[in-house]
Amino acid sequence: MNPLTGVVPPVCTPLTPDREIDVHSLLRLVDHLVDAGVQGLFVLGSTSEAAFLTDRQRRLVVETVALHVGGKLPVLAGVIDMTTPRVLDQVARVTAAGADAVVATAPFYASTHPAEIARHYRLIAAGSPVPVIAYDIPAAVHTKLPADLVLKLAAEGVLAGLKDSSGDLAGFREVVTGARTHPDISDFSVLTGSELFVDAALALGADGAVPGLANVDPHGYVRLDRLSRAGDRHRARAEQERLCALFGMVRAGDPARMGGSSSALGAFKAALHLRGVIDCPATAHPQVPLGPEEIERVGKFLATAGLL
Amino acid sequence: MNPLTGVVPPVCTPLTPDREIDVHSLLRLVDHLVDAGVQGLFVLGSTSEAAFLTDRQRRLVVETVALHVGGKLPVLAGVIDMTTPRVLDQVARVTAAGADAVVATAPFYASTHPAEIARHYRLIAAGSPVPVIAYDIPAAVHTKLPADLVLKLAAEGVLAGLKDSSGDLAGFREVVTGARTHPDISDFSVLTGSELFVDAALALGADGAVPGLANVDPHGYVRLDRLSRAGDRHRARAEQERLCALFGMVRAGDPARMGGSSSALGAFKAALHLRGVIDCPATAHPQVPLGPEEIERVGKFLATAGLL
Amino acid sequence: MNPLTGVVPPVCTPLTPDREIDVHSLLRLVDHLVDAGVQGLFVLGSTSEAAFLTDRQRRLVVETVALHVGGKLPVLAGVIDMTTPRVLDQVARVTAAGADAVVATAPFYASTHPAEIARHYRLIAAGSPVPVIAYDIPAAVHTKLPADLVLKLAAEGVLAGLKDSSGDLAGFREVVTGARTHPDISDFSVLTGSELFVDAALALGADGAVPGLANVDPHGYVRLDRLSRAGDRHRARAEQERLCALFGMVRAGDPARMGGSSSALGAFKAALHLRGVIDCPATAHPQVPLGPEEIERVGKFLATAGLL
Amino acid sequence: MNPLTGVVPPVCTPLTPDREIDVHSLLRLVDHLVDAGVQGLFVLGSTSEAAFLTDRQRRLVVETVALHVGGKLPVLAGVIDMTTPRVLDQVARVTAAGADAVVATAPFYASTHPAEIARHYRLIAAGSPVPVIAYDIPAAVHTKLPADLVLKLAAEGVLAGLKDSSGDLAGFREVVTGARTHPDISDFSVLTGSELFVDAALALGADGAVPGLANVDPHGYVRLDRLSRAGDRHRARAEQERLCALFGMVRAGDPARMGGSSSALGAFKAALHLRGVIDCPATAHPQVPLGPEEIERVGKFLATAGLL
Repeated sequence: MNPLTGVVPPVCTPLTPDREIDVHSLLRLVDHLVDAGVQGLFVLGSTSEAAFLTDRQRRLVVETVALHVGGKLPVLAGVIDMTTPRVLDQVARVTAAGADAVVATAPFYASTHPAEIARHYRLIAAGSPVPVIAYDIPAAVHTKLPADLVLKLAAEGVLAGLKDSSGDLAGFREVVTGARTHPDISDFSVLTGSELFVDAALALGADGAVPGLANVDPHGYVRLDRLSRAGDRHRARAEQERLCALFGMVRAGDPARMGGSSSALGAFKAALHLRGVIDCPATAHPQVPLGPEEIERVGKFLATAGLL
Repeated sequence: MNPLTGVVPPVCTPLTPDREIDVHSLLRLVDHLVDAGVQGLFVLGSTSEAAFLTDRQRRLVVETVALHVGGKLPVLAGVIDMTTPRVLDQVARVTAAGADAVVATAPFYASTHPAEIARHYRLIAAGSPVPVIAYDIPAAVHTKLPADLVLKLAAEGVLAGLKDSSGDLAGFREVVTGARTHPDISDFSVLTGSELFVDAALALGADGAVPGLANVDPHGYVRLDRLSRAGDRHRARAEQERLCALFGMVRAGDPARMGGSSSALGAFKAALHLRGVIDCPATAHPQVPLGPEEIERVGKFLATAGLL
Repeated sequence: MNPLTGVVPPVCTPLTPDREIDVHSLLRLVDHLVDAGVQGLFVLGSTSEAAFLTDRQRRLVVETVALHVGGKLPVLAGVIDMTTPRVLDQVARVTAAGADAVVATAPFYASTHPAEIARHYRLIAAGSPVPVIAYDIPAAVHTKLPADLVLKLAAEGVLAGLKDSSGDLAGFREVVTGARTHPDISDFSVLTGSELFVDAALALGADGAVPGLANVDPHGYVRLDRLSRAGDRHRARAEQERLCALFGMVRAGDPARMGGSSSALGAFKAALHLRGVIDCPATAHPQVPLGPEEIERVGKFLATAGLL
Repeated sequence: MNPLTGVVPPVCTPLTPDREIDVHSLLRLVDHLVDAGVQGLFVLGSTSEAAFLTDRQRRLVVETVALHVGGKLPVLAGVIDMTTPRVLDQVARVTAAGADAVVATAPFYASTHPAEIARHYRLIAAGSPVPVIAYDIPAAVHTKLPADLVLKLAAEGVLAGLKDSSGDLAGFREVVTGARTHPDISDFSVLTGSELFVDAALALGADGAVPGLANVDPHGYVRLDRLSRAGDRHRARAEQERLCALFGMVRAGDPARMGGSSSALGAFKAALHLRGVIDCPATAHPQVPLGPEEIERVGKFLATAGLL
C-alpha cells in the first residue's frame, strides 16, 4: 500500500430479493473487478450501501472479500458511523474480518468543529491496527474536510490517505500538492472519488481513483488510469468522456418517485445485473427500486458505451 | 401513553472519566427527574449523546432506566441510525431492553426523498413491537419532515407521535392542528423539542415537551407545563423566560475551541455535576470538554436561576 | 412610531398586464387595508415584489402610497439592495418619495460576517434621515441576523426596530425579551413577519406583525391583534387557525412548474383580484403565472374562509 | 467574440479613499492587463465589487474601460441584479456605456425554479442588444445553473457563453462536452471562473478563463493559457501550481474580523497597490479593510511568487 495507486473501486454489495448479502454475486463482482486490473478494493463505502447494511451484513461482506482475494490486493473497508466510539467499534469488526485499511468520514449527525474532527481521527488512528484513510464526503456528512487539516493529520502520521468525494477539485489539489511538498509526509495516497474527472485528478498528481461507476466498467477506468500514466492525454480524455456519458445512467430514476441515491445505486446494480455479473438488482431499504422503463434506460447507456 | 403528555425529558447519559456509562449517576438523574414530576423519559435522544454511544452502551442505558422505573412512567428510546435495516436492529435492541416506544429520525447520510422517508417509517412500524414516534431534527439529519407526510403516516397508524426539534413553530402547528382535526387520527402525541417556546407550543395545542434543559431544571419545566394547562399565561410566560435565560448556558463553550454540541451537552452535564446529580461531567468523544472558566460560566447561569 | 405596533401589512404591488405599476389598484388596496384598521403600511418588502421592481417603479410606489395616506399612518419602505452603497441610494430615493422609515436587510450576494453586517447598519443609519428597521429574512439573503447583534445595534440607536421573517421564534423571543429588559433600549419595535404564529408572537411580547396574508384578509389580522391584546387567547387562537388555513393558498401553484415565490405571490394577487380589490393578478417577471386551475384553488381557500 | 477564448480577467475596481471610482488607477490596471496579453476584459463582476457599486459608479466603470480599449478587445459587463426587470435596466445602462456583451446571473433574493431561470435568460436575451453570457455563481446567488438548462438555452441562441464560478468541474465538463457535440450550438464560449484549475479546465476543452487573481498576475495566467494550448502540460501544471500558491493571499484577512469577500478582494487590491498598479487598496463598504499585518502577509505571497 505504499502508497495505494490506480483504480480502487468502491465495491457494490449485491443483495438477494429479501435484502440479504448475495455472497455468490459478490464473489463474481470481485472477480469481474480484479480480472479487469484494479489495484485495490474498497468495500463498505457509500456506493456499497454501507449506510444501509447492518453490522452483521457488513462483517460478512468484509470476510467474504478478504478471504477471496487472500492478500493479492489490498482490501479497504469503510467504517461509516456517526462518532468516534461507534467508528472504533466498526474498526474492530472490519479488521477482525480481514480489512487491510479503514476509511472513516468526519463525524456526522452531531455538528462538528475542526478541533473535533482532528480529535476524531487521532482517536481512530490510536485505536486502529491498520492504516486510516480519511473519507471526505460532504454530501453525506455535511462537513467538508479542510485541506490544511488533512495535511496536518497526514504529517502527524494519523492519516495514510484521503478519498475525496467532495467534487471540489481545488481543495483536492491543495492536498495533492501539499502532500507532495510537505517534509513530514510520505506514502500518503490521495484518491479522487469522482467518476467524471479522473483524468484531471491524475494529471494534477492524484495517486488513484475510487469511482463507483468502475463497478459497471472496470476496464474503462483501468484503461483511463494507464493512458493517463503513459501521458497519452488525448486518448485519456476520450476514454474519460466515454465514461462521463455512461455515468448518465445515475439519472435513470424518476426524481418525482425517488432520491438520488435510489436512482444512482439502482442504476449501477441494474447495469451489473444486465451485464450478468450479479443475480438481482435489489437495493437496500428504504431505497425505491427502479421500474422496468427506468431499467431500460440503464440498458441504453450500456449499449451506447459498448457494454452489452 | 394515550397520548403522551407533559414533560418528557431527553435524559442525559452520565459517563465515567473513561467514558463508560455511569450507572449510579444515571439512576440518580432519573430519580431527580421523576421526583420533579415528569411524565415520561426519553433515553437515547440527541441530548443523551445517543450518536456517541456504542450499541452495548445504548442497551445498558435502556435496561438500567426501564428496570428502575418499572413501568411507573413510559420510557421512550431513540433508535438513531442511518437507514431502515440499521434502525430495525436498534429497535430490536431497545425493545428487548424494555423500551415502551421508539423514536426514529428520517434516514440520514444517504440523501432522502419523501417517498423514501415514508417507506422508512412504514417498515419500522411493521417491524416494531412498540409504538413509533417520529423525530424531526433537521439540524442533525438535514431533512425536514413535511407536516403533510407526518399527518398521513399518523392517519395510517404508522406513527404514534412526533418529537419536533426543528425550531419551526409554523410547521409544528400544522401537525398539531392537523392531528386534532383529522378524522383518522386519534391519540397522536405532538411534542416540542424546544427549550425556548414550550409556553407557545402548549398554548397552540401541543401535548407536551421534550426539552434538554429539563435535565438541569425539571421542576421549572413541570411548573411551566402546569401553569400552561391551568391557563395562567402570565406566570407561564415568566417561568418560560426564566428558563430561556438559564438556557444561555449552552453558549458557555468557546466557539473557537469547540462545536455547538460540545458546548451545549458539556454545559448540561457541568450543571448536573455542579448541582450534585451526577459524579462526572465528561462528554463522549470526540467532543471537546469545557475548561474551568467555561464551567464557571455555567455555574453563574445556575446561580442566577436560583439553582445553586 | 414610538414604537410601531399592531398590523403593518407588507403591501402587494398591483401590476398591469404589461407589468407596470397599476396605481389605481394600488390605491384601492391601500384603502382596503387602512379601512380594516391596520396601523402602518410596509411598501417595497418581499411580498411587494420589491426584488422585481425597477428603481423607477419603486419610487412611484412610495410616492403614490405616501401621498395617499398623507401622514395618517406611517409608511415604511423597503430598501432591498445588495450592499451599503446601493442601499444608501435606495434610502435617498424612498425618503425623497415620502417614506417615514426604511427597512433594510443584511447585505447579500457577497458573503457576510457579523462585523460587516454591523458596519452596514451603522453606515445606513448614519446616512438615513428616517429611522432604520432591520429586516431578518434568511430565506432571501442567506444570513440570519444574530439576536445579540440586533440588540447591540438597538442599544446604540442604530436600529429602531426589527421585522423578523426568519421563522425562528426562539431567536425572535431573545430580541423581544432583550429589548424589554436592556437599559439602553426604548421604543424599539419588534415585529413578526410570520402569518402563522402571530398569536404566539404577540403573547410573548411582540409589538406587532407584518403578515403578507394581511393583504388578502386585513380584517382577520386586525381582529387577531385586538383579541390578543385583550387577552382573549381562545378566540385569538381560533382566528389564527382560520388564517393558517387560508394561508394554504400559497401552495396553489404546481411545484413542478414554478418556485415558491411565484406560487405564494401569485396566490395573494389572485385572491385580491377575486375579491375585487385589484384589476389584474399579474406578478413580475420572471415569475410564472398561476393557471386557471391554480386560481380556482385560491378561490376555494377564500370561500372556505368566508371571504368570497 | 466567436467564441471568446483565452484569459479574460474580471477587472478589479480601484477606489479612492472616500470610495469613489479611481479612474486613473482603473486605466493603469486595464493597461497592466492588456499589456500582459489578455484577450478580453470582464468589468462589473464579483471580483470587480459590482455588488458594492452604485449604478452611477457602474456606468462610469464601463464607459471608462470601453472608451479606453476602443474596441481592441471585447469588454464584457456584469449586470448583477436580483430579477429580470432590474437586470434589463442594468443591460440598458452598460450597453449605452459601450459593453460588448453582458454577463447575467440567475435571479437571486427571490427563490428560483429552473423554469423561472429559463424565463429570466430568455427575457434578458430578448431585451439585450448584445450577446448574453450566463454567470454561474452559486456562492452568491444560492442556485446552481443546471448543465442541461445552459445547453438548452445555448441551443436556442439565448446564451452566447458561460462563466462558471461554481467550482464544480464535473458540471462544467458537461457543458463543455455538450456544447462541442450539440448540433445546434456553435460559437459558445465556456469559461472557467476558477483560479486554481485553469490547466484542468483548458485540458478538458474550456475556451478560456476568468480568474480574479489575473488582476495581480496577468502574465502568469496568459503564460498558463499559452502553455496549455501548446500541449506543454508539465510546464502548464508548474505555472498553475505557482499561481495556486499565490492565491493563498485570499486568506490574508483574519476570519475573526472579516468575511471571505473582504479578505480576498482586500488582498487582490493590496497586491495591486504593492505592485504599484493602483493608488489605494480600499474596498467598498461594508467590507472590512485589511490591517498592516494582513497586508504584510499579502506582500510575502507576492515576494514568493517573484512579483515584488
